[in-house]
Amino acid sequence: MSTTRIETDFLGQRELTDAMYYGVQTLRGIENFHITGIPISNEPYLIQAFGYVKKAAALANRDLGVLPAEITDAILQACDRLIAGQYLDQFPTDMIQGGAGTSTNMNANEVLANVALEILGHPKGSYTIISPNDHVNCSQSTNDAYPTAFRVALINRMRSYRTTMLKLVESFSNKGTEFAQVLKMGRTHLQDAVPMSMGDEFHGFATNLQEEIDRIDASVRLLTEVNMGATAIGTSVNAPAGYPELVVKYLSELTDIELRLAPDLVEATSDTGAYVQLSGTIKRTAVKLSKICNDLRLLASGPRCGFNEINLPQLQPGSSIMPGKVNPVIPEVVNQAAFFVIGNDVTITLAASAGQLQLNVMEPVLGFALFSSIKSMENAMIALREKCVIGITANAERTRENVLASLGIVTLLNPVLGYKKCAEVAREGFELNKSIHQIVVLEKQLITQEKWDELFNFENLIHPHFIQ
Amino acid sequence: MSTTRIETDFLGQRELTDAMYYGVQTLRGIENFHITGIPISNEPYLIQAFGYVKKAAALANRDLGVLPAEITDAILQACDRLIAGQYLDQFPTDMIQGGAGTSTNMNANEVLANVALEILGHPKGSYTIISPNDHVNCSQSTNDAYPTAFRVALINRMRSYRTTMLKLVESFSNKGTEFAQVLKMGRTHLQDAVPMSMGDEFHGFATNLQEEIDRIDASVRLLTEVNMGATAIGTSVNAPAGYPELVVKYLSELTDIELRLAPDLVEATSDTGAYVQLSGTIKRTAVKLSKICNDLRLLASGPRCGFNEINLPQLQPGSSIMPGKVNPVIPEVVNQAAFFVIGNDVTITLAASAGQLQLNVMEPVLGFALFSSIKSMENAMIALREKCVIGITANAERTRENVLASLGIVTLLNPVLGYKKCAEVAREGFELNKSIHQIVVLEKQLITQEKWDELFNFENLIHPHFIQ
Amino acid sequence: MSTTRIETDFLGQRELTDAMYYGVQTLRGIENFHITGIPISNEPYLIQAFGYVKKAAALANRDLGVLPAEITDAILQACDRLIAGQYLDQFPTDMIQGGAGTSTNMNANEVLANVALEILGHPKGSYTIISPNDHVNCSQSTNDAYPTAFRVALINRMRSYRTTMLKLVESFSNKGTEFAQVLKMGRTHLQDAVPMSMGDEFHGFATNLQEEIDRIDASVRLLTEVNMGATAIGTSVNAPAGYPELVVKYLSELTDIELRLAPDLVEATSDTGAYVQLSGTIKRTAVKLSKICNDLRLLASGPRCGFNEINLPQLQPGSSIMPGKVNPVIPEVVNQAAFFVIGNDVTITLAASAGQLQLNVMEPVLGFALFSSIKSMENAMIALREKCVIGITANAERTRENVLASLGIVTLLNPVLGYKKCAEVAREGFELNKSIHQIVVLEKQLITQEKWDELFNFENLIHPHFIQ
Amino acid sequence: MSTTRIETDFLGQRELTDAMYYGVQTLRGIENFHITGIPISNEPYLIQAFGYVKKAAALANRDLGVLPAEITDAILQACDRLIAGQYLDQFPTDMIQGGAGTSTNMNANEVLANVALEILGHPKGSYTIISPNDHVNCSQSTNDAYPTAFRVALINRMRSYRTTMLKLVESFSNKGTEFAQVLKMGRTHLQDAVPMSMGDEFHGFATNLQEEIDRIDASVRLLTEVNMGATAIGTSVNAPAGYPELVVKYLSELTDIELRLAPDLVEATSDTGAYVQLSGTIKRTAVKLSKICNDLRLLASGPRCGFNEINLPQLQPGSSIMPGKVNPVIPEVVNQAAFFVIGNDVTITLAASAGQLQLNVMEPVLGFALFSSIKSMENAMIALREKCVIGITANAERTRENVLASLGIVTLLNPVLGYKKCAEVAREGFELNKSIHQIVVLEKQLITQEKWDELFNFENLIHPHFIQ
Repeated sequence: MSTTRIETDFLGQRELTDAMYYGVQTLRGIENFHITGIPISNEPYLIQAFGYVKKAAALANRDLGVLPAEITDAILQACDRLIAGQYLDQFPTDMIQGGAGTSTNMNANEVLANVALEILGHPKGSYTIISPNDHVNCSQSTNDAYPTAFRVALINRMRSYRTTMLKLVESFSNKGTEFAQVLKMGRTHLQDAVPMSMGDEFHGFATNLQEEIDRIDASVRLLTEVNMGATAIGTSVNAPAGYPELVVKYLSELTDIELRLAPDLVEATSDTGAYVQLSGTIKRTAVKLSKICNDLRLLASGPRCGFNEINLPQLQPGSSIMPGKVNPVIPEVVNQAAFFVIGNDVTITLAASAGQLQLNVMEPVLGFALFSSIKSMENAMIALREKCVIGITANAERTRENVLASLGIVTLLNPVLGYKKCAEVAREGFELNKSIHQIVVLEKQLITQEKWDELFNFENLIHPHFIQ
Repeated sequence: MSTTRIETDFLGQRELTDAMYYGVQTLRGIENFHITGIPISNEPYLIQAFGYVKKAAALANRDLGVLPAEITDAILQACDRLIAGQYLDQFPTDMIQGGAGTSTNMNANEVLANVALEILGHPKGSYTIISPNDHVNCSQSTNDAYPTAFRVALINRMRSYRTTMLKLVESFSNKGTEFAQVLKMGRTHLQDAVPMSMGDEFHGFATNLQEEIDRIDASVRLLTEVNMGATAIGTSVNAPAGYPELVVKYLSELTDIELRLAPDLVEATSDTGAYVQLSGTIKRTAVKLSKICNDLRLLASGPRCGFNEINLPQLQPGSSIMPGKVNPVIPEVVNQAAFFVIGNDVTITLAASAGQLQLNVMEPVLGFALFSSIKSMENAMIALREKCVIGITANAERTRENVLASLGIVTLLNPVLGYKKCAEVAREGFELNKSIHQIVVLEKQLITQEKWDELFNFENLIHPHFIQ
Repeated sequence: MSTTRIETDFLGQRELTDAMYYGVQTLRGIENFHITGIPISNEPYLIQAFGYVKKAAALANRDLGVLPAEITDAILQACDRLIAGQYLDQFPTDMIQGGAGTSTNMNANEVLANVALEILGHPKGSYTIISPNDHVNCSQSTNDAYPTAFRVALINRMRSYRTTMLKLVESFSNKGTEFAQVLKMGRTHLQDAVPMSMGDEFHGFATNLQEEIDRIDASVRLLTEVNMGATAIGTSVNAPAGYPELVVKYLSELTDIELRLAPDLVEATSDTGAYVQLSGTIKRTAVKLSKICNDLRLLASGPRCGFNEINLPQLQPGSSIMPGKVNPVIPEVVNQAAFFVIGNDVTITLAASAGQLQLNVMEPVLGFALFSSIKSMENAMIALREKCVIGITANAERTRENVLASLGIVTLLNPVLGYKKCAEVAREGFELNKSIHQIVVLEKQLITQEKWDELFNFENLIHPHFIQ
Repeated sequence: MSTTRIETDFLGQRELTDAMYYGVQTLRGIENFHITGIPISNEPYLIQAFGYVKKAAALANRDLGVLPAEITDAILQACDRLIAGQYLDQFPTDMIQGGAGTSTNMNANEVLANVALEILGHPKGSYTIISPNDHVNCSQSTNDAYPTAFRVALINRMRSYRTTMLKLVESFSNKGTEFAQVLKMGRTHLQDAVPMSMGDEFHGFATNLQEEIDRIDASVRLLTEVNMGATAIGTSVNAPAGYPELVVKYLSELTDIELRLAPDLVEATSDTGAYVQLSGTIKRTAVKLSKICNDLRLLASGPRCGFNEINLPQLQPGSSIMPGKVNPVIPEVVNQAAFFVIGNDVTITLAASAGQLQLNVMEPVLGFALFSSIKSMENAMIALREKCVIGITANAERTRENVLASLGIVTLLNPVLGYKKCAEVAREGFELNKSIHQIVVLEKQLITQEKWDELFNFENLIHPHFIQ
């Protein structure tokens, strides 16, 4: 039989199941916000980050003499448990919530207060001893504690994301090496253009994604500027002198992140530019992955009525009706994750634009969309590497035959014959269905077989030298 | 101790826990797709819709002689259980998946096959007796069964959404009636304009949202066109003659929805226009709700340094640091849900654009984004009505005083004094901080007190008559 | 030597070149707004629509006795000239402007006042005789005259757009008929699926776009609801009794459009939902055209290393370096126009969300984006039809050979051999590079040559019948 | 009487007016592309950049012995004229075009060839002497020349943009200093929060925009990596050895930009990531400006029924019906420009995603959208500074009175009385309409008048110290 307790805030009294560490304000948040059905505990990095933030605040408050030692110690212990991943089930508030994160911040304050009370042997709800507001939230406002925790969580989340990205780059790079001697037709406008090495194509994918690392790092750097100590609107009202610098110093040490105190706390409290930047970076990656996966699907098209240059690993039967059909399901799912990320970027843009005066109250949806984007993109990159890229094989014979049968190789004759003559040759080939070799060497004898061999040997097709 | 069974598809063998009703193809889907972490069972309407679709197919197949009676009966019973909400935990496939929904369709086929086998007393996996592909999926392809189920699910989902919308309209309409006699300043460009009734303002919100009902109905109508019977690409390959019409007739009866067979099945199989349309409709509502909630937050701004025309219900303490502060948390959460919906519309636009040739393989993300949008928007509307609109009160005295002290009322003198003279009066009022009455009646005697009273009585301020 | 005149408004005096029909308020607008560099005269339908609106207002004002006959007659003549397309160069205000269209409305008021004055033999600027505000703008506000003119312009613009759409549909439909007997491989996931007729593919494009006509009509219908007579905020302040109904009646007659007076004028004055709907409709078309043009580019890929199913008309040399190369430039430009339209839809969504209280001041950018979208999309459709679709030819021999060499045709054996056996056949074909015929007839003798001929004859490949 | 000449390409012959410097390929481009109606000459930086690119190529080709001295000299002279701004009217190709910019590149090649021919005394069209393809375009492809010119143009365009941004920052900063002693109520959630200095608010705007400078610089840095020398697909086919490095060296010198040759030319030729990044940066600025302009409009709301904290310069009569009304037209137009930029970012995202294999053929719409965004945003920032920010004045008396009458100042009593007691005081104030001073000093005597004076003196309200 579960017991209950009564808690009070300035809007009245509420009964809580005593097993719950959260209190009356969290309860109101739960009741008020049913939007996504996804609780904040779905992003454990965020809950952990609150552990760090509240711990740093307690340490700074203790040092500055505004929090008694015994209370501080209990709060510190409670924070350590949160950091270690305990009590996740005590954070049921919906990811999208009104109140600019106050429900999330109070959820953390209440859980920590009650854990600390328990540590000291007091019943939950004994807030005259340890108060969620006066002690756990001491020298803080939602408006600085929430975005600071949000940033710490994002930075930690992005570490994993960055590692995943690097592994994906490496897998493309390895394929680039593997396919170095595969001759294939390069295409522009989906039209046959000039020959190239398939290795260069895959190496290009690696280069393309490698460039994202710098963008990630630059975006994460913006996140390291925090407004902790700004309290309500950046004037540091109710924070003791020296507190902002001290709490940031402690938080840096605890998280092992080089955090910096924002030089303009009023500006920093309503600014959401760092989230826009981060989302833009992830969106850029989504754009690139989308293009790459389109290419993979195109190159693997067929097998008999398509490009059929590469084979993707076969993961599952592709059709409930067409026997033996296998589809490029991983590139397809990456494409879809990319669409989701691009949509989220618009959500983030809108939410960031909606700040008003001294605060942007839309931070919860910024968090929801950003965490969703990071997670989807990271999962997509893991799948792309593990279940697709590393298993790709090339149909080297087919691609080589394609090159030699193509009209696009006429371009290599440009320096010898000039653009105009080459164009005539290409037209003739197109209209009479002849090969370039047949026209220029056998029929019109525009060049000798020897010259032909010099121009169209394997190495010169893959990495052409200038031959006049 | 759990037992296991072995299942085989053309890519090889896999072991499954025997408690599971899903089979090898579902298992592959689970392993291949980890993007959102949200399973398809999160949208029970979708699972139920597969019950309807598979049941209609079985009935049509039986009538046309391609499915034996005993097998049909077992499948029908299995479908009824799915429709009743059973086996939701057997649908763990991720909402975002590659393969155009094949994993979802096979998940349904495998669960139904195994339930039907159980009904007939056979062990799970006895697919030579009842096969997920040859029997449950008989005369179907993912490419017709999946979008048809998706549409049935959306239509049912939108019924609830529509009802919620109507209730919200009614709540605004009631407030319109309640505030009919509240005189307030109308504003354009956030600048004082001319007087109006607060009732008309709230009635306007009701009208604005009422207009969405027609849009919803028109969008849902597009969804009632299904491609069931198209099979793989719209040529009805492998479906018996007469099947498409018959299966749609059965499906209409089972779902109580007037479904229509698409007249051009090739087109219908790759077309995702109906989803774009539906998302556009929900986005339009999001745009309107966003504007309305911005207005509510603006009208409730203050209490001492803002507009302070209305009071929203107080739901939770608004600040962890500022005592007594209460924030407009419900309009804020509605704004955020709207941003999410607008972002999802971009996701949907991208996914719909990405169809290629005979199929749009991006349907799963279309489903994910659409169901997310509908759910968030419906939840937001419920909260807005229950926790905000019905409890709004007006500060009628304050708004009336504001009107009389304003310069905007000079507009009513236009027909009497002309635009140019009125502009001079308004400038004088603005620069010397005088009231309009003081200038035109007391100081300049441009009109008599009697005329003033005629023009500026309560009724004429709220609903002005033309007086020269 | 140009002469000048002085005009005055309540902010002071300004000198104007006397050749100019516009006045001081237009001049201020020109000076204040330099954003796009594109003047409102760039959209002649909009200027013409102001002629209609001002004419209807003058007629209603005359009938109701608030505008003298002589002044009315002069204004009517001036309006007729505007409607006929004169004075376009007198509308230099930037398309994107602050003030919710007041600069555009005053531009029309001032030009019409000065033209009317000229007709009566008075010098420009004699506003005590005919005033832009008191006479031309009589019983109006920017807040009703501007959106009404905007809607009339959009409706007329969409008539031309609709006709263009129908012609494009017809061109695809004709190709559908032309290609009816072209057998080709249908593809899903870019993978070979089952055979089909190329005629059905092109007929599908026609059907897909034909469906847009209903959407256009529904969207245009929303535009026919106007708020003319609402004046400043929908209370009809300063308009004589009966004016709203009368002016809408006149406007309907003049424009030959069935316009309806909005039943809730307060709501209608700030509502921009009809623009969101129209943009959504055009965006849906952009999504469809984007998909279709992607398909055309894919089907035309090659000529030697691609799908090479169709040939697009050759319009221009495709490369400055690759001789003889020709690119699918028209589908490419349509794709780009579609991207522009989809971006504009986001602009429109944002602008529509930004309405506040009794007005949406962002209407000018709504107009800019909508007119840009309509124009780009209509131009794209014209180019697509004239320079691409009508000249497309099919490579029927190649596509037929592709079908017969494919593995996808195994699907037709499903009802005979079952999914599992067919999957084995397809695997063997894939792995050993054999044809289906070789395996099932020659080697394994699973069916007879006679049965094969029945299943795989031309007609059954294009429009398969169910054969067990 | 104008004379004509005949030009030929591999698609046939065309007649050109001899006054025209452009040739047959440009003519085809003009005929093929009518989308926006805006010619490429609308962006003079782009035409100039082609002058630089073609000049650098000619110099490198001369040095490497593939272009004769006399021809080189003539081409160099022609390029210098283009750089100087001549012949803009010879670039009529539509901004949105198919063919990945080939029409633009050939337009430059043809104009330069004919100017060079004229310099040497030959008639236009004598392409056997100087050929647009073989000489002007020597060692180039559209696929390297076009993106390189595009980047040079963007970099130059952004220099002006950056300067404009810095001036806007300075104007906000100056207002920050001017308003340093203006006490006002800070607001979160549009609800009264705690006091602050209006100077800090405006200084915050300056800080917020100052942060954009680093983002601009980082984005521009990405643009300095060029693929000049990649020719068709990055294999440098047809370019002499050493050419890529040399042409980039020349181009850097000519443009005074530190350009770098892309290390992976295959990747660089299809990569459009730098444009996505630049657009993201401009979008971030749009988001910030949108928020700031919303704030300005809110702070200036009233004058009698709004916040009325500041006065914006009065630029034009605000209404055609409401005399004396003045609207915040500049913030409104900035908001609209921001919406346009945010929409363009979606266009750019889509176009960048649409690259395929060795090229992104959608570059023209990338250019169109980017140049439109930069121009609109720069114009908006100029207007904001010149016509709004520098003329803003504060209503210091009113804002100070508001602070003292507010309930929000109770927060300063938190450290003295605790959150719970303060919340009770605030509730009482709210419900009984009393001031904080009345309750805590006069009625309840919770603190002394002396303590009150210490806490609520002007300096402590603006920059609060921690007082227990």
